[in-house]
Amino acid sequence: MSPRQESETKRGEAEATPRALVVFTPSGRRGRVARGTSVLDAARRLGVDLDSVCGGRGICGRCQVTVSEGEHAKHGIMCTGAALTPPTPTEEAYAADRGLAEGRRLGCTALVGEDVVIDVPQESQVYRQVVRKEADARSIAVDPVVRLYFVEVEPPQLASPRSDLARLLDALEREWDLHELSIDPVALRNLQHDLRAEPAWSVTVAVHDGSTITAIWPEFHDAAYGIAFDVGSTTVAGHLCDLHTGNVLASAGEMNPQIRFGEDLMSRVSYVMLNAGSEKELTRVVRGCVAKLTAELCREAGVERTDVLELTFVGNPVMHHLLLGIDPTELGGAPFALALDTGLRLHASELGLPVNPGARAYVLPCIAGHVGADTAGVILAEAPHLSDEVTLVVDVGTNAEIVLGNRERLLAASSPTGPAFEGAQISSGQRAAPGAIERVRIDPETLESRVRVIGCDAWSDEPGFADVRVTGICGSGIVEAIAELHLAGVIATDGTIDGSLAGRSGRIVRDGRTYAYVLQAGEPELRVTQNDVRQIQLAKGALHAGCMLLMERYGIDRVPRIRLAGAFGTHIDPVHALVLGLVPDCEPEHVTSAGNAAGTGARIALVDRSARTEIEEVVRRVEKVETAVEPRFQEHFVNAMAIPHDVDPYLRLGAQVALPRRWTATVTTDRAARRRRAAERRAS
Amino acid sequence: MSPRQESETKRGEAEATPRALVVFTPSGRRGRVARGTSVLDAARRLGVDLDSVCGGRGICGRCQVTVSEGEHAKHGIMCTGAALTPPTPTEEAYAADRGLAEGRRLGCTALVGEDVVIDVPQESQVYRQVVRKEADARSIAVDPVVRLYFVEVEPPQLASPRSDLARLLDALEREWDLHELSIDPVALRNLQHDLRAEPAWSVTVAVHDGSTITAIWPEFHDAAYGIAFDVGSTTVAGHLCDLHTGNVLASAGEMNPQIRFGEDLMSRVSYVMLNAGSEKELTRVVRGCVAKLTAELCREAGVERTDVLELTFVGNPVMHHLLLGIDPTELGGAPFALALDTGLRLHASELGLPVNPGARAYVLPCIAGHVGADTAGVILAEAPHLSDEVTLVVDVGTNAEIVLGNRERLLAASSPTGPAFEGAQISSGQRAAPGAIERVRIDPETLESRVRVIGCDAWSDEPGFADVRVTGICGSGIVEAIAELHLAGVIATDGTIDGSLAGRSGRIVRDGRTYAYVLQAGEPELRVTQNDVRQIQLAKGALHAGCMLLMERYGIDRVPRIRLAGAFGTHIDPVHALVLGLVPDCEPEHVTSAGNAAGTGARIALVDRSARTEIEEVVRRVEKVETAVEPRFQEHFVNAMAIPHDVDPYLRLGAQVALPRRWTATVTTDRAARRRRAAERRAS
Repeated sequence: MSPRQESETKRGEAEATPRALVVFTPSGRRGRVARGTSVLDAARRLGVDLDSVCGGRGICGRCQVTVSEGEHAKHGIMCTGAALTPPTPTEEAYAADRGLAEGRRLGCTALVGEDVVIDVPQESQVYRQVVRKEADARSIAVDPVVRLYFVEVEPPQLASPRSDLARLLDALEREWDLHELSIDPVALRNLQHDLRAEPAWSVTVAVHDGSTITAIWPEFHDAAYGIAFDVGSTTVAGHLCDLHTGNVLASAGEMNPQIRFGEDLMSRVSYVMLNAGSEKELTRVVRGCVAKLTAELCREAGVERTDVLELTFVGNPVMHHLLLGIDPTELGGAPFALALDTGLRLHASELGLPVNPGARAYVLPCIAGHVGADTAGVILAEAPHLSDEVTLVVDVGTNAEIVLGNRERLLAASSPTGPAFEGAQISSGQRAAPGAIERVRIDPETLESRVRVIGCDAWSDEPGFADVRVTGICGSGIVEAIAELHLAGVIATDGTIDGSLAGRSGRIVRDGRTYAYVLQAGEPELRVTQNDVRQIQLAKGALHAGCMLLMERYGIDRVPRIRLAGAFGTHIDPVHALVLGLVPDCEPEHVTSAGNAAGTGARIALVDRSARTEIEEVVRRVEKVETAVEPRFQEHFVNAMAIPHDVDPYLRLGAQVALPRRWTATVTTDRAARRRRAAERRAS
Repeated sequence: MSPRQESETKRGEAEATPRALVVFTPSGRRGRVARGTSVLDAARRLGVDLDSVCGGRGICGRCQVTVSEGEHAKHGIMCTGAALTPPTPTEEAYAADRGLAEGRRLGCTALVGEDVVIDVPQESQVYRQVVRKEADARSIAVDPVVRLYFVEVEPPQLASPRSDLARLLDALEREWDLHELSIDPVALRNLQHDLRAEPAWSVTVAVHDGSTITAIWPEFHDAAYGIAFDVGSTTVAGHLCDLHTGNVLASAGEMNPQIRFGEDLMSRVSYVMLNAGSEKELTRVVRGCVAKLTAELCREAGVERTDVLELTFVGNPVMHHLLLGIDPTELGGAPFALALDTGLRLHASELGLPVNPGARAYVLPCIAGHVGADTAGVILAEAPHLSDEVTLVVDVGTNAEIVLGNRERLLAASSPTGPAFEGAQISSGQRAAPGAIERVRIDPETLESRVRVIGCDAWSDEPGFADVRVTGICGSGIVEAIAELHLAGVIATDGTIDGSLAGRSGRIVRDGRTYAYVLQAGEPELRVTQNDVRQIQLAKGALHAGCMLLMERYGIDRVPRIRLAGAFGTHIDPVHALVLGLVPDCEPEHVTSAGNAAGTGARIALVDRSARTEIEEVVRRVEKVETAVEPRFQEHFVNAMAIPHDVDPYLRLGAQVALPRRWTATVTTDRAARRRRAAERRAS
């Protein structure tokens, strides 16, 4: 007798028996059911969220519960371990086969004997929360858009010529209460084979969005995965997740192969503009990269590619358009019109990806011509729209995307920072890759420097550093170097390298008509030149101006909380960012890294169906600010060039925006005081 | 000033002016509108069905109306030609450019001046009826699932970063009241180019099912076509239709290239069973054939392939499954389980067809393991389910599909007639192709024959017949030959060829242990052998038995009306069919050909969206009768072998089913009487 029959027989017998009180925790739902009712049935009747894929056959083990023994005065129950019937052979077989923790019961085979308080652990709930490791991060709800259902289908009979599909739909309606399902033509193809594979007439189906059968497997099948992709101009990254637990099983990144058509976004758009039809080639290579990553992630996680049922994508507007096969030419010039600014649902096969042929893809919405689906991902991950506190979220790349606001109101803009923060247009600059200097400390007395390099945990004056090959300076390295040089008095407020110090230190050298600081002598020699400082000034001026513009629009003069997203935001030291004036003034402890927020947003949209409507709704109401048409932006920009940011622009904003307190208190032009503070910081 | 602006200005002025009574015919809808309202706007306000693609810009000419001059006592109106404002420059330009019949006005530019009665001709209605040429045929409603809408879209503005799609959707909502549209990713790809093609910011979109944009064209575009396909085992036929008028612009057929895998259905299924994976090859070749026909039809009709937006398909279950890429193995043996028995909506691209990339396909539902989507098409075309009168519809091929019933109740079955009716397994048999004998007359006195051959309108004893090469006998030819031989007394009731007549005519010759009738002497010699008669007896026995089984189930002993569908049904002479007992007894004038009803059904589903839900609903409630499990079928079969059908089976049905009147009255075993009747018929 199958566990299902077992349970049904018992249920039948139970109809005449007296009823028992069942209380479920943590939901608190309670009610009386006939003794002999299975815990799973009781949960369903009382509307308690108790998971199951096999539909009560003791196979999947998703419906595990615990009896909450002891006195429950509130419910008037004295609950013992015997409140449920003893473990059945099915349960023992499951425990022997797959293991069952002490005290755990399978809700589908354990029957209610007496009044009982039953605890449904987090992992037995269909809807659950995954708490993220990062502090400050929102926890992720797991409620995937695709779910698996195991069913037993009636075999066909000559006398009753109903189709295999019709009988499958009957079973799904009978066992799972799923109505009016349609089926993807690709899932139809193997339906008949799958239904007849031994042991015949039982299959697991994937149902997308409660409406469409997208995949079928013979017998019980309990594996459903998804991949969240962040398609960046430089790197394409993917995270393979278990759609049941929401956990990331593998992550991988690849260089975006479009780089051969242009280092940055605009050069790729130019390439498309100059070479008719070349957008097809750019689409082909980026999809190829996503396909390669898909295969790699599946291999790494030991997952069948046909078990990948769902994909999500974020990316800046140009990557978004090229991924979808849309010519990005319009994004290359004013008025920077997006083709679409809504989320897009499509078949993974339309993107040519090697996953289940019924898999679906969801592309998050772009916000504006320069504010892409990656920023939508950042919003989803950082959730400023769910908070009372106003947050400034900054994602720095070739453009900086800036989001400001709270649940009341949200503003977004893009600031043209240029590629300096990514190490480009810097004399010794390079990408953030092994060999790149990412941390810099400069002694204000000796003007000597210590550095740390990507790929090595030791500082250059520590023993572990020997034999490390230093190849260049990455974005965070150049920002720290300039901030430290400023703190050491080498770089003045206006950005000039003080040539008079050349006598005091051999590190300050003449460099044409200006001066430079030698960060590393020898091969290769790495310098911070006057032009490097100018490039960073331009970049940080643009970023700061964008932030100021949004703050002005929002009507606040100070942000309580700043989140730095993206690779640069992860590597940059918040204090150096503040010293240099990259972001508006804020308590340093409230300036934190958000990690790869865009990718996290893609992951949230992957595992939580409701996040998709949530972000679409948020994107619709975000106030889009176009910096290019804001006269105030130019003004803020010019005023934000100085290092540190001089107090003038604050004063000029007038009454509405008062002078920030901390700025005057902590940033002075007194070099000695600044050196002192830096020394203190290092000592602490 | 554009006609739209013209009209809007006038409308603005009109608000303060007095109102006029407008009566629309033939709908009879009436109401008062401000003088100066355009006829199109008045129609929309009063809920009158008046077509328009350009949205009132005087471009499409779809909204043509006529003023119904004279006294309309019923409405209290004395209507003159001046009831509408005089023709506008836009109307004159339209008339000069595309022509406008006397008295016709463009409803979008003609404004209401006085009380007026306006006639909306059939062709200006969105929903219209196409009357079919065939008598007895239902007229076809034209209401395609895809419609075109012309719109003017706001250009993008730097300060307001809404996407092109968002502004397009705004325009569709504003001008056409279309809400919550989604867009097919393939239509998105060229959206930005199309919007900017000169003259920029006006496009025509195709909206599928009122919900999804599937295609976009720059500027005004007024061409939307569809193709209805009938995928037969032998022939694949397609009809290209104008989705606006419902008219067939081109028809073409191709041999089904699957023939190289097996002459008939079952040999193809066997091929698939014996060669793992070969179903993919069969799918590939049949789709290739459909693709080739598509290109051919477009060429013939002078239609752009990208203007083909909709496709429909009918076919027997095996063709249906193979077209969809479903292994037909299950259809090769009991219990003959279909993969699906519902209609299927898919993208034409999933079938690899060279049409608009956003085109959709609709595959009509199969009914049972041997009763396919072709029969669903026959039902749609013949519409027994809409009639009070009970109709028997028979579609003869290798299997005969039989449908019986009326609006109350509908039954369907398939009878295994074998391929004899298609000329196979007949000694001199061949397909219905040029050179095949399709008509036979035998003189009961001389036993000499006259024949008519496909490809020549003359009989063999007429002058025009010289030089016609006769190659064989097709299905309708062999049926007529046997019926005529029976009427001439050469073939007895039990099917035996009477060898004693060999002395009377040289046409009766010895053929091994039996006799044969020489239909054509010379090269090639064409005979009707004893075995040929047996094959036709088996086939007609099966067909008759199937009909009897359904009649018995339905509880009637006589059908008032018989429709013969398909190629065989078109060529067969109803009287011969009755003489031979192919179908149950019926008044000969009520036995008529239904033509290619399956193809017509595909055409109806193509041009009329509601026909799809209609046929799905009908197919769900059809009572499916499986002849193989009906003991009564064997009994009917054995009893139906005789020529003509002896009266025994009727008697044996007992009280419930009385002996049909006509049978006893007109069919006798008296050869003389029979010859007399045949002579009378020929003379009349």
